Amino acid sequence: MIFSSSLIEDAVNEFSRLPGIGKKTAMRLVLHLLKQDAQKVEQFSLVIAKMKKEIKYCAHCHNVSDHEICKICADVTRKKSQICLVETIRDVMAIEATQQYSGLYHVLGGLISPLDGIGPDALNIQTLIQRIEICETEELILAISPTIEGDTTAYYITKKLSHLPVKITTLSRGVAFGGELEYADELTLARSIMGRLPIADIVHGGG
Amino acid sequence: MIFSSSLIEDAVNEFSRLPGIGKKTAMRLVLHLLKQDAQKVEQFSLVIAKMKKEIKYCAHCHNVSDHEICKICADVTRKKSQICLVETIRDVMAIEATQQYSGLYHVLGGLISPLDGIGPDALNIQTLIQRIEICETEELILAISPTIEGDTTAYYITKKLSHLPVKITTLSRGVAFGGELEYADELTLARSIMGRLPIADIVHGGG
Repeated sequence: MIFSSSLIEDAVNEFSRLPGIGKKTAMRLVLHLLKQDAQKVEQFSLVIAKMKKEIKYCAHCHNVSDHEICKICADVTRKKSQICLVETIRDVMAIEATQQYSGLYHVLGGLISPLDGIGPDALNIQTLIQRIEICETEELILAISPTIEGDTTAYYITKKLSHLPVKITTLSRGVAFGGELEYADELTLARSIMGRLPIADIVHGGG
Repeated sequence: MIFSSSLIEDAVNEFSRLPGIGKKTAMRLVLHLLKQDAQKVEQFSLVIAKMKKEIKYCAHCHNVSDHEICKICADVTRKKSQICLVETIRDVMAIEATQQYSGLYHVLGGLISPLDGIGPDALNIQTLIQRIEICETEELILAISPTIEGDTTAYYITKKLSHLPVKITTLSRGVAFGGELEYADELTLARSIMGRLPIADIVHGGG
């Protein structure tokens, strides 16, 4: 791409460093911003800078927050006896969007992955154990990906918590609602058959 | 989408105002920036703000530029007798990328479109006429879209220039190179047949 202005070139380069944005899309975004009012572009720039500067991570659950303690941890109506363990803050948002969970969260910040050099110390595991010890949590729900890294992490955490009376559960896996059987992958389908449930459990919401 | 931080929410809203970026993609971009070093995010923000503040438009051709006169207009090796009329600066980049044109450009900034309230005065048409009068331009190449707006604009400009000895040409239209005939749209194919050329012209690069 040949740029007639180095200012444009720099802006395109910055945008194209973002995930999923190539040079052409970056150019489109830059041209869009060029057409906007100066005030709007300044606001765009300010909001991004401000977010990075002022964002806090909740001292309890490591979720992003505007304050020391996040909205969810500060909410007195939520069940303090349940902690849902997730990998990222996006998972918190996904579970919150279901409106089916009223306990607390704990954001790990990643999964144990020796290949990528991520050990247990790089994650928020120590604070999780302390939280469970101090708050006498009754249930820890492992809502982490069913990958090799996820399984390793789940195994490590389960071992570390074996001396505590906390009940450890995991999300149920199976064929998605609305999904057609023929398009489900073999592993999911196989696990769905192995983990089959009496139909009464589903109908009455038990389990 | 339920956000646990208003800083994140603001940033997602800003990103999702960009064309082609929805809330989910915006969230992905924001989370990516959150993971980056503070310095990198600040640079991103600064570069965007700087671009909008410091960008100049060439006094001759209205292309974006770092200086009063753009690189292309300032280049003494380019043919001053040819002006290629384009709609946007992206078109300048597209034509420059072909490396087949060595004349100057003139960026209209849009097309005449009464439905959108864009009249000739909103575009850089007056400066084009002045340029052609003063520089005694020999050829004006209309490289604008073959749409109703494009045709209207081309017709208007041709009329306005009728008193000047400038030769007005337009890009050739036809089936794209590498395109298969059966996939060409009917109008393009019809025009290609109407505007057929002796094969010698193509082989020898004439026309």
